[in-house]
Formats: sequence, C-alpha cells, structure tokens
Amino acid sequence: MTDQSEHARTDQTVVEDRSRRLVYDLGEGTAEMKPLLGGKGAGVAEMIRIGVPVPDGFTVTTEACVATMESGGTWPDGLWEEILAHLDALEQRTGRRLGAAERPLLVSVRSGAVMSMPGMMDTILNLGISDESVVGLAEESGNPRFAWDCYRRFLQMYGEVVEGVPGHAFEDEISALKARRGVELDNELTVEDLQELVDTFRTVALRHTGQGLPTDPREQLRRSVQAVFSSWDTPRANVYRRAHDIPDDLGTAVNVMQMVFGNRGDTSATGVCFTRNPATGTKELYGEFLVDAQGEDVVAGIRTPRALAEMEEVLPDAYRELLDTMARLEQHYGDMQDIEFTVDDGKLYLLQTRTGKRTAAAALKVARDLVAEGVIDRSTALRRIEPAQLDQLLHPGLDPEHGEKPLTRGLNASPGAGVGTVVFDADTAAERGDAGESVVLVRWETTPDDIHGVIAAQGVLTTHGGMTSHAAVVARGMGKPCVAGAGELQIDVEARTVTVGDTVLSEGDTITIDGTTGDVYAGALTLVPPRITEDFTAVLAWADDVRRLGVRANADTGADAAKARELGAEGIGLCRTEHMFMDAERLPVVQSMILAETTEERAAALERLLPMQQADFEEILTAMSGLPVTIRLIDPPLHEFLPDLVEQSVHVQRLEEAGTTGPELDDARELLAHVKRLSEMNPMLGTRGVRLALLYPEIARMQVRAIARAARAVRERGQDPHVEIMVPLVGFDEELRRMREVVEETWAEEVPGDDVPHSVGTMIELPRAALVAGAIAAHADFFSFGTNDLTQTTVGISRDDAEGSFLGAYVEAGILPGNPFASIDVDGVGELVRTGVRKGRDTVPDLKTGVCGEHGGDPASIALFDEIGLDYVSCSPYRVPIARLAAAQVSLGTS
Amino acid sequence: MTDQSEHARTDQTVVEDRSRRLVYDLGEGTAEMKPLLGGKGAGVAEMIRIGVPVPDGFTVTTEACVATMESGGTWPDGLWEEILAHLDALEQRTGRRLGAAERPLLVSVRSGAVMSMPGMMDTILNLGISDESVVGLAEESGNPRFAWDCYRRFLQMYGEVVEGVPGHAFEDEISALKARRGVELDNELTVEDLQELVDTFRTVALRHTGQGLPTDPREQLRRSVQAVFSSWDTPRANVYRRAHDIPDDLGTAVNVMQMVFGNRGDTSATGVCFTRNPATGTKELYGEFLVDAQGEDVVAGIRTPRALAEMEEVLPDAYRELLDTMARLEQHYGDMQDIEFTVDDGKLYLLQTRTGKRTAAAALKVARDLVAEGVIDRSTALRRIEPAQLDQLLHPGLDPEHGEKPLTRGLNASPGAGVGTVVFDADTAAERGDAGESVVLVRWETTPDDIHGVIAAQGVLTTHGGMTSHAAVVARGMGKPCVAGAGELQIDVEARTVTVGDTVLSEGDTITIDGTTGDVYAGALTLVPPRITEDFTAVLAWADDVRRLGVRANADTGADAAKARELGAEGIGLCRTEHMFMDAERLPVVQSMILAETTEERAAALERLLPMQQADFEEILTAMSGLPVTIRLIDPPLHEFLPDLVEQSVHVQRLEEAGTTGPELDDARELLAHVKRLSEMNPMLGTRGVRLALLYPEIARMQVRAIARAARAVRERGQDPHVEIMVPLVGFDEELRRMREVVEETWAEEVPGDDVPHSVGTMIELPRAALVAGAIAAHADFFSFGTNDLTQTTVGISRDDAEGSFLGAYVEAGILPGNPFASIDVDGVGELVRTGVRKGRDTVPDLKTGVCGEHGGDPASIALFDEIGLDYVSCSPYRVPIARLAAAQVSLGTS
Repeated sequence: MTDQSEHARTDQTVVEDRSRRLVYDLGEGTAEMKPLLGGKGAGVAEMIRIGVPVPDGFTVTTEACVATMESGGTWPDGLWEEILAHLDALEQRTGRRLGAAERPLLVSVRSGAVMSMPGMMDTILNLGISDESVVGLAEESGNPRFAWDCYRRFLQMYGEVVEGVPGHAFEDEISALKARRGVELDNELTVEDLQELVDTFRTVALRHTGQGLPTDPREQLRRSVQAVFSSWDTPRANVYRRAHDIPDDLGTAVNVMQMVFGNRGDTSATGVCFTRNPATGTKELYGEFLVDAQGEDVVAGIRTPRALAEMEEVLPDAYRELLDTMARLEQHYGDMQDIEFTVDDGKLYLLQTRTGKRTAAAALKVARDLVAEGVIDRSTALRRIEPAQLDQLLHPGLDPEHGEKPLTRGLNASPGAGVGTVVFDADTAAERGDAGESVVLVRWETTPDDIHGVIAAQGVLTTHGGMTSHAAVVARGMGKPCVAGAGELQIDVEARTVTVGDTVLSEGDTITIDGTTGDVYAGALTLVPPRITEDFTAVLAWADDVRRLGVRANADTGADAAKARELGAEGIGLCRTEHMFMDAERLPVVQSMILAETTEERAAALERLLPMQQADFEEILTAMSGLPVTIRLIDPPLHEFLPDLVEQSVHVQRLEEAGTTGPELDDARELLAHVKRLSEMNPMLGTRGVRLALLYPEIARMQVRAIARAARAVRERGQDPHVEIMVPLVGFDEELRRMREVVEETWAEEVPGDDVPHSVGTMIELPRAALVAGAIAAHADFFSFGTNDLTQTTVGISRDDAEGSFLGAYVEAGILPGNPFASIDVDGVGELVRTGVRKGRDTVPDLKTGVCGEHGGDPASIALFDEIGLDYVSCSPYRVPIARLAAAQVSLGTS
Repeated sequence: MTDQSEHARTDQTVVEDRSRRLVYDLGEGTAEMKPLLGGKGAGVAEMIRIGVPVPDGFTVTTEACVATMESGGTWPDGLWEEILAHLDALEQRTGRRLGAAERPLLVSVRSGAVMSMPGMMDTILNLGISDESVVGLAEESGNPRFAWDCYRRFLQMYGEVVEGVPGHAFEDEISALKARRGVELDNELTVEDLQELVDTFRTVALRHTGQGLPTDPREQLRRSVQAVFSSWDTPRANVYRRAHDIPDDLGTAVNVMQMVFGNRGDTSATGVCFTRNPATGTKELYGEFLVDAQGEDVVAGIRTPRALAEMEEVLPDAYRELLDTMARLEQHYGDMQDIEFTVDDGKLYLLQTRTGKRTAAAALKVARDLVAEGVIDRSTALRRIEPAQLDQLLHPGLDPEHGEKPLTRGLNASPGAGVGTVVFDADTAAERGDAGESVVLVRWETTPDDIHGVIAAQGVLTTHGGMTSHAAVVARGMGKPCVAGAGELQIDVEARTVTVGDTVLSEGDTITIDGTTGDVYAGALTLVPPRITEDFTAVLAWADDVRRLGVRANADTGADAAKARELGAEGIGLCRTEHMFMDAERLPVVQSMILAETTEERAAALERLLPMQQADFEEILTAMSGLPVTIRLIDPPLHEFLPDLVEQSVHVQRLEEAGTTGPELDDARELLAHVKRLSEMNPMLGTRGVRLALLYPEIARMQVRAIARAARAVRERGQDPHVEIMVPLVGFDEELRRMREVVEETWAEEVPGDDVPHSVGTMIELPRAALVAGAIAAHADFFSFGTNDLTQTTVGISRDDAEGSFLGAYVEAGILPGNPFASIDVDGVGELVRTGVRKGRDTVPDLKTGVCGEHGGDPASIALFDEIGLDYVSCSPYRVPIARLAAAQVSLGTS
C-alpha cells in the first residue's frame, strides 16, 4: 500500500467533506434542505424562492458543524475559504464591503438548528462594524447615534458570546454612565456617550480576555462562526435537547445575513408574530413589535413590546405588507407560522419563518380549522399533532367557578394551572423540584440558562416579557402553565420576596398561577379534572378511524375504569388486584392472611378479603360493560405487604433497649421473624407472580372466586362483563398449565353454566417466556407483554435502583439513547416481544396479544408494537388519547 | 365428525396401547428391550438367551405401568387377560398350578425399573401359597417347616406391601411368640408355631385393613402387580429419582417368576455378588450369601451374611457353577456385573444380573482393566464412566499417616472419609444437614425410607449389614463414605447414644468415619486433599485425546490456579478480582476507597490496593504460565463491601439509645448514610459490572494497571503470561466500546511496547447481550457466557432467594425438570447462548467463546455447549476432570 492510498483511507471523512459544499447562498436553498441548512436557513431560502423580502446572505451547513465537533473543534479543510468566497460574492451583490469606511456591509451571524431550539444558541448582530465603518454607517444613514448604537451593541454581543466576557460587565458600564449622565433609558444617551461606551467596552474586554477583541471583521466572523458551532454543545443546549428528545448529532447551521436595521429610528421596528394564536389556535392577530429596536430586544423580553395591532398606526405600509406575507406563508406551508421581521426605514424584511410552536389545545384547533378551511386533509392534520402533547390537555386546571380573587394578573402566555411554592432562581427550582416539591419559578424574565429550572417547575411566572418572550415560548413547548409580564409584582431577589400591593410572598410560600387567564393567586387553589373539548373529541375520532391497533387502559378502580372509557379506552388491559390490598382498611386483613400459621387461619383471612375484592371487581366490570377487562392475579412478593425489614429491626432494637417485655416485644419479634423469612435479596426476581400463586393456591382461588362472583352479580344487573384472567410472571409452560387448572376449576365452581365470557392468559414479562412462547401459548387464550418487567430482566436493570443511579448518567453520557423504561429498547426487549408474538401465534394462530407496560402509552414504542402486529396496547387512562393518536399516525405512515 | 372418529381421536393413547403387547415371557426378551422390560426383566431374558439357569416367568412392561399411572390407576384394557394367559402358559410349562394343593406354583412379583433403584420399590415372594397349596408344598418338599415358613413370609410381605399393614404389626407377633416359646431365632420356631403365626397374621391383617386379605392367589397377583405399579410413585422412590436424575415418566416393569427357594434347608442358600470389587475395582471375589434364607434377607441387612468365598465349602458345586457363570456374564456384557442368585436344594439359579454400581475409583480401575484385558475399547470405557462420579475422588480423605487410634472398625463399604455429628435417624439427619450442619447417620442398618437422611449426611455408619447391604449400595452410588456392620457399636435409640467399650457418644458428638479402611474415630480428624491415582490420570488422558471442547478453571488465587492446572485445566476462564478485595487486611482499604469524598482520597486508596492486586495476579499468571488467564474487572455492587444495612441501622439505633455522642455516633451515622445511599432494592440488577466501571473508571484503571504490571513482572521472570481482560455485565455495545478504550489506554501506558499478549472481551450474562451480540462483538476479542447470571435474568429467578424458597418446591412438584442453576435450561438460557454465539461470530468469525458459569462443570450442560460450538468451558478446579470426561463423551457420541 502506498502512502497516498493510506492517507486517502484514514482521512476519508475529510475527503468526503471536500466532495461536498459546506456553504450555500440563501438563494440556492429550498425548504427540503432543512437537514443541511437548518430550520432558519431553509426557511429563509424558501421565502426567497416564493418572493418574500429577505436580506441577502449565505448559510454554513450543519455538516460543517458536525465535522468540526467530531474533530474536536478543527474546521473541515476548505471551510474558511468557502465562507470567504461567499462573503466576497455577497459584497459584490450588495455593493458593500465588510468593515469598509464607505458603504460598509454589516451582517448578522445566527445559529439555525434542524429542530428549533428557541434562544438556546448564539447570535451576533452588526458584525462588520469597526472604527472605520462606523463612520461610513453614520454618514450613509445620516444618523450617527444609530451607527454608534450599532457599534456598542456589536461589541457587547460579540464580547459576551464569542469572547466570553460576562454580560453584566457591559451592562454595569451602561448603568454607570446613565447614572453619571442622570438619564434612565438607553436611548437618552448621546452619540458622545455611545462613543465613550465603545471605548469603555474595549477596555472591559481587554480586562476580561487579557488581549482585547480582534479588530479585523473577517477574524471576528471566523470566531463568530466557531462560537455558533460551539454553542451546540453548551449545558443549556444539552438540557434542552434531553427535554425535547432532539438527537445530539444533528449540529447547527450558521446563517450569515446582511443586517437590516430595526433600530434606525422611528421608521424602523422589529417584531415577532404568529399566523394564529399559539396558545388557543384561534385565527387572530398574534404578535409583538418594538419601534427603534434590534431583533433580540423583543425575544429577550428586556423591553415589554407592543401588540402587533398597534403597528397599523405606526408603520401602516409595512403592517399591511406583513399581514399579506403572513397569509402567504401560512398558505404556502399549510401550517401556522412563527415569523421574525424587521422594518428598516419603512421597508419590511422577513428574517425567519418556521412552524409555530403551539399548545396542545391550539394544535387541535389549528388542525381542525385547517382541514375545515380546505388547506390540508385529515391525514396531514393527524400527522402534524405531537401525541405526547395531548398530555397537557388532560392535566387538571382551575375550576372556572372557583370565585377566588386574584392577587394580580399577567399575560396568559401558556395555558393550564400550576400550584407550587415560590422560588426565585432556576437552581433552587431544579433542586427542590427534583426532590419532589411542587415549585413555581418566579423571575423577572427567564433566560436560556434557566431551562433546568423551568423543567423542574409546575409553572413559570415572569414580571417582564410578553407572549413571545423566552419564558412563554419554552413553557408552551413543554405544556407548562406560564403567566408572563405580570408587571405589578416587585421581586426582591436579595430578600427572596415578591410583593404586590400589601401582600409580601417569601420564597417557600405557595401560589397558584392560571396560564389560561393570566391570573395569579396566593395559596393553593383546588385543581379540577380537565374538560374534554370538541376539538379533542373530533380529532381523536379521526384517529380512531384510521388506527389498526386497539387501545386499552390500565386501571385498578371503578373510577379509573370510567375515566379510561371516557378517554376512549376499548377495555382494560391490566387491572392490578394487589393495589386493592394496600387500602388502609384491608392491609391488616392481608397481613393476617400472610402471617397465618395454619391453613385455617389463612382461609379465614381470605374469606374476609373475598367480598372486598368482589366489590372492586363489580365496579370495574360495570364501568367496562361490553368491553374486555384483563384482571391480573396477585403479583408482588408478600413482604411488600409487611413492614420494612430495616424499620422493624430498628423497632425491635428500640423495644429491647427500652426494656420492654411481654406481648409487645414478642409480637414485634414475631413480626420481624416473618419479615426476615419473607424478605428477599432481589424481590424483583423472587417469590412473586405465578410462583406465589402456585405456593399458595388458596390466594389465587379466592381472587378467581371474587372475579367470578362479581361477573355473575354484574351480569344479573343487566351488564355485560367480559373477564380475562391473567397469570403473571410465567416462565415455564407447566406453571401456566397448572395455574389454568386452578383457575378453571374455581371458575366452574362459581359459574356452573359457564354463561359469563371469560378467558385465561398470561403476562409475557420474562425473557424465557418470550423464548418459549410456543409452549406457553398452548395453555393461553392471550398474551399480554409486561414490558416494564421484561425490560428489567432483559437489560438487567432494576428500575427502582437505576433511575436514580447509573441510568441517568448513562443517558446523560450518551451510552444509552434514552431511558428504556420510557421508550422501548427496540433491539433487545422489542426483539423478544417480536419473538414471543411469532412463537405464540405459531401455536395458536388467533392468540390475542397486547402490551400492558408503560410503553403502551409511548408513541415510539407504539410504532414498534403496531409493526410487530400486536392487537392492542394498554396504558394509563390519561395516556389513552396519546396512544389513540400515535396508533393512528403509525397506520398513516410517515409520508 | 361422527361420534366414532371423535372417540378414536380422544382415546388415541388407549388405542396405541391395544396395538402393543403388555406382557412378555422371559424367554422372549433381549438385553436391548430394557426400556420396555426394565433392567431386571431384560437381564433375566438375556441370561436365558445365553443359557444361564434362570427360573421361568414373564414380564409386564413398563408401558403398562405408565399407561396405568397416566389414567390415574386404571389398567389398560386387556392387561389382566394378557397376564392370565401368560400365567396359564407358565403353569403349563412348569406343570404346576398357582394355589393348587398338588404341585403348587409359587411365584415372586418384583419391580424392575429401567434404571436401577435398589430397594426403592416393592417385591412379593411366595405368591401362590394358600391353605391348600401349603399342604402340597409341605408334601412335595418333605419339609413342612419350610412350607409354613413360606406361608408366613408371604402373608407378612403381601400384607405389608400390598395391603398396607404396618410391618411392625407382624414383627411384634413373631417377637411375642418367640418370647412365649422362650426361643431367640426365627428358625427355632416349630411348624406348629408357624401355623399359629399364619392364623395370627390373618387376624392382624383383618384388624388393620378391616376386611382381611384375599385368599384367591390370582386376586393376590392382580393386587401385587398394582402395588408394584404404585410403588413407582412413593415418596422414597421420588426422592431417589430426584437424587439420581432419573426421569419420573419411565415407569417400572413387573417380573413374575417361578419361586426357587433358598430357604429349603442346608442345601439351599441365597446371595448377592459382584464380578469385581465395586469399592476398588479389583478383580476379586466379592459377594455374600446366607444359607437357608430367602432373597431379601441378604439385601435388607437383617442377618449379617457370610463372605462368598465360604460358599466353596458349604455348596461346592453350586459355588463352582456360580464362578463360571459370573465370568460368562461379565464377558458377555463387557462390564462388571451385580448378580443375585439362589441355590435351591443344591441347584443354582440366577435371579438377576445388572451392571454393578461402583465407586469412582472402581469405575476408573474397571474401565482401565477391561481395556487392558481386551474386553472393551477405550471409547466404550470412556462412555461408561459417569463424569459426575469423579467428584468423589477429588474430595479430601484422611491422611494415611495420621496416627490416630480408631474407636472401632467395620466393613469398608464405601470409600472416602466423613466428619460430622452423630445423628440416629434420617429425619434428624435431613433437618440438621439441610441446615448446614455436617452429620454422620448412625443406624443399625438403613432402609429405603432413610434415603433423605443419607442424602443429607456426610457419611453412613451401620452396626449391621454387609458390603451389599442397603446402606453400602446407596452410599457407594452417591459417593459418600460408608462403614457398614461395625458390630461392636451398641446403639441406644431411646437414650440417643452409641457405645463402644467405655466410650459413650451422644447425638451431636462429632465422629470421623473412614470408608476406605472401615475405621471409626471419635472427634474430627483432619482431612487432606486427595491423591490423584494412576487410573485417574490414564483415563483422563484418553478423554483429552478425544474431546474437542477446551476445559479451563475458575480460580481467584495462585493456589487455586495451581490446583486447577494439576487437574488438567487449560487456562483460567474466570478470575474474580473482587474476591481479592474481601481479604480481612484489604477490606478497610476497599471501604475507604468507596467512602472517599474526593477524587484524591479515592485515588490514594486505589494506590494502596494496586500492589496487593498486582501480587495476586503475579501468582496466578505464574501458575498458569503459557496458558490464557481471563481476569474479570470488578463486578459486585459496592455495598457488598460495606456493612449490612439492617445491622448498621440497628447499630446506630443502639448507640443513640445508649446516649452515645461524639465521633463514634457521627462515624456510625455517616457510614449508615453511605450504606443507605449505595443499598439497592435488587442488587442483582443494580449498579455493578461495567456500570460501576463506567461510573468510577479509576477503579477499572487501577485493576488494569495491576494486571499489566503483574504481566510484565512475570514476563521479566521468564514466564509466559497470556492475559484476557474481561468486562462484566455488558448489555449495550457502547458500554464495551467505552470500557475497552479505558482498558487499552491504561494497558498502553503500562506496557508501552505491547509485548505481553493481551486481549479484551466481555461476559455475556444478560439476555440483551445475547440478543445484540453482533454489535457487542465488534468491540470484543472473546465472549464468555456467564450462565449463572444469564439464568437469573432469563428465567427471572434470584438464586439467593429462590433456592431456599419456591425453586425447591418447583422441582419437587415437577414444575421444573431440575434446578436450572445446576443444569442449563436448554430451551431458554441455552437458546440465548446459541443466539449469542451465532450473532457474535457473524460479526467476528474467529471470536473466541466460552462459558464460565457453574454449568461449565455440568455434563448435561457441557453436551449443549459442545453442540453449540463453544471453544471451552470453565468450571471450579475440582470439576475440571468431570468436564474433561464429559467433553470426551460428547465427542464420542452416544453410540
């Protein structure tokens, strides 16, 4: 092998990169090139294609970013040359030059990922301004104040974003200068003040970086592009991607666009708008703008912006053009758009358009309206709705009739209600929230660095910022309530208090926020179950029309069963009988059953439990009349019903040390002995499920008897019970054969005419069960895959232990793509489900198959279950709508 | 479908039975028909075929027994008619009639299973004797005493075995009568006494059964056959089958043979003999006989029999014919025979011949001698030796030079030494033995009902019975030491003492028995490792010549490694590094490593552990110079190195109650907090293996460093280390990819020139690992299947919990065929091993594969591993010879 060919082999990546272009002019792109150009780049390109006014520029591809990350920060060969070539072309097209004293070219440098990550990554505006070009800009615009404001803005953003100077270092200087000048607002500063600031900022940067900022705009551009690349990998961006399931390896594109100026004076403005209301879905004006401002001022929430409707008065021509453009863009994309625009001396430019993030309620309404308007068909509408988002609609809210008087009101930025204790910073929110406390994050305004606090909070309350502010956008994306811009509130971060009128709330006090109305209340208001809207019902009905997969619910009580049916469940896939044992009244009876020393004692305890279980089953079967109800026989190890071993050991020790004697000590010791005898090293793999039922068949008999009697009683009341009795934890066919005998015998005793429909099946929740499913199926009418336990045994991970331990670290470190208990492990657990279904059906072709683990409510897992050909999934009642929609989407396919 | 065809379908079993014969004359059978005729039936048939004198008769097939058991006790159609027809034919051939007053036919009815179960099932002798025929027998024999002795024997056996009358009820009457008559021995009773006993026995039977014994010999025969069928399913037979891995569904044949009488007086005798010494394998006379006795008298050990050599004087003709027949039978079968014979008035009859059970030492010697004698070839010899039996030879024995004086001496009935506390009954032996105590069962003589006690004991000591007594046969079969017939011992069961001379030992006192010499010692003598014999070495060398599968050992110390090499291990398949941590000196260092609060503290503790681990590895690598050594990185969860949670909780409670304050309480509380933080609900599925190593890579680095330094040091001393570093508990390929990086980096730092052979691989011990083995193999040089953990996760059974709980009950109840931790679960775990090997080799065709679970030493599992194509098995050092032989047998096949 020659040196050359060796080189060619090892540097394959680079060679591949070389064969591809790493930079595209904006005019070269299309919407389909989003993976390469990012959302912003492709969106702008598409706007150019359809004639919407957009500034000129070019895009550095996501591939350039990925290649840079992979090589640990080194740019792919030729990237810089390509950027320079495109910059030259841009200079030629515009007749301007970067950093030139005459007709200077200023550009913005913005990140643009494939999936929108609002505010998560970096932007630099006004790049190209310098000691030379600021003069040219001043002359050309006839507005020296504007030119110098651009300059100080550039130094501030560049210094902070690219060179890592702390933002407050610049802000402090502005505040100090304003104080010296005795003014309050930035725009009261004079040209001379701004010139002084530019000098000061350079000094600040020198102090922090040790070597000052580069003065060559091309070097600034190079560093800015690198900074955008790096911003992909910041902690806040990583947290955001985790929270939104965005892969880490997509990378971001970098958009370099000619600056247009919303800060050129009263004829200029900048704004953000949606084509429909993203909180409700209503087709109405929804947006905000600021006159004489630059882009980030609106989104960052530093100045509270004005409602878009007011722009009609201020900038009537640009306003009309904007409305016209919004309509065109929505029609073009067939979906609600989220638009950024700038008016530069009266002329409208669009800087970005993207599919607008929206609440679940809005998603349903927009989908339904767009179908009604004939813009899209039902299939397209169904594909557009994120199933997981429906969860938002099923969370409790405030009773509209509650009658409490609000403390204050802000903007209804993200609907739903949140109750929690006040916390004033994201770290505290994350700490207390992760510890299980309900908290509401109360901030002047949130920033991208607060993302972990928003995730941990029940809701967000801000005193500044509008409907499109960071807090509002992020909260809507997560389905959390948000009240924004509640300006009456005075936060004192030092004192850890928030004041409104005479009321002072301290950190730790409880408040309730209603993001649907914008109201804020002191104390905890009662939440009521959500009401199901017409949009919800209509769209889910479309989903039911197209899905193949059945959807059942996991429910252990009559109330849950009724709720599940209301939410569209077609039966119960898992009714856990042991939860009924945990009831405070029943637990002592259960314990006496376990501690029984004779068969007679045990029989007596079981006799007392029987009518209790029967009553439970009657409620459930009544609620599900006409639909199948799968009831699982007792599953957990018996020690779960007894006191904890450590506690009881300590208790006995305490009694002994206290010199207690007599029955109290004896009983405590006896109980301890029982707990010890039943305690297990690995209860997950211990005496539970069918093993327990075979050791103590009298328990299973009691349960079957209770089920049978309940079914008969319900039947006699004119209802139509369909009972499926499920045996858990079967690993060997002989277990099911014997257990089925016990079940059928007992059933025959209780239902002599066999006139109540019943069947007997098993959970498949052990790897062995899936591997020998053919033999097990010989004794089963149905299989229900218990993918929670199947995951625990297949991947050898105890959920109880791992989620707080290595599993989180694994996901964080990218060793696992995600938590396998949330979304099914396709290659391992999924493979066993596939094997189990195949082998089971080889033996019993019409074997009914379902899944009753939590994966039954997870859209990605549902796609696999549909592909494997399961008959149904079963999930918690509130996930039933999600499963219905996800199942429909699988049936529709991805096109 | 017509009624008839439906009937034909459902009664298929019966129809099949009808098409087969259920009874065969003895003369019709051959040795090959053993599955149908049982061992005894086929053996007798074969003897007839080659002209050995055998009584006439017929055999009811095992299939008849199985069909009866399957139908819950109902005989297959036509069975009784077939039996009667064969009885008629027997009557015609012998010119005698069952129960006739003249020339009466008497028969024996004996069980005869496919696999020998000595003494486990039922026998009835002298059937056909009645009030009429006893007269004819008396006249024909000229010996009324003999005839009436036969009658009372028959009533006694029939009453006990068939009708369930307690045996002692008859024995009590004999004792009472002897007392009344003032005599001591049975044969001092007169004809009249025996006649009186016959009457008394009938009354006894009436009292116990409520309806007396049937008088019709044909009805007695019918019930006797049924009793033999039923004896297959007695508790003692089930226990025996469990202990010897005999399937439950084989059933037993029933042999009905004309009686020949060893109790016809001084010219008659009955005996048992082996063609070679079954304890040592030496070719010598080995057998016992009793004059004027019936068959069961010898085996049951009630009278101590005489050595066979003495028969030359008493019955010289029969003796010479017996020697001649023994030689012919051994030659014919090509193996050592175990023979039962009777001399009826000078004429020799053989009643049974079967392959003789023997000790492992005897098995090796017999195999080697038969090959040397040219009787069989090496392959046949290898196939004949039960691999598991070799275990006996590897158990410690007494040092021949120990110099202690024995208390007494008995027969050296089964070799090896046993130390334990004296117990006097089987239930106590089982109870204390199962609780972990070493016990020696001391009995007058054992009976089949004592089997569970023998299983639980370290050895058996009897005061009566000979080399072929029940205790001797059973102990030899199990490889347990047995001293039989130690007649100086006086057992007082009431007082729970055994006395010899002045020494009185009570239950619970410790004794030592030496089954190799027959000596019995008070107290516990020191045991020494076994010496490997020439036979052992020679036969195992034959095994090595034919096996394909490699055999390695699991060893954690240099001493174990050396022992393993001595026993033929070809390397180490599993060296557990964490056992080294448990050493009393090191544990505090390990704990300080775990409890370290800073990276520096942890690093310091690891620095101290490094040279300790290095020293261990040096020893092991030296012992295995030239052979591969697989070292597993740390596996168990860290809390295993800390105090138990319950104990520490109680300890803190105790300190608190005692009012302790200051550092002692603080330290205890801090330790408790650590233990709590690290404790897991299911440690088996928790933070261990590669998970631990990825969370604390510094631990793995220390271990790799220790291994690398040890390898270099050993290499520098001229040895040849071959290191295989094994990563445990991998479930995801990314885990191994990252861990391998850590290992290779560290290795490269320590062994810069990479001049020590090393490779990196993984355990496959999670179902997921087997399912995605293709991806994992991309980062592995080898796979080692950890079938212990793989079994735990695949079947969802925690070994720690289940073996004392439901698993035993499952095996007992036949839900599982056996303990899946002892012999591999072929359909579940075996399937995953197969999948893992296939997928792994799809990726890496020359991937080295082995198994290091305990199944590596189990012959049945080894057969599967060979078939799957693993490269090697690895097991504990003392199982290495077993694995070598088992692997050879798989290579030889079954023919």
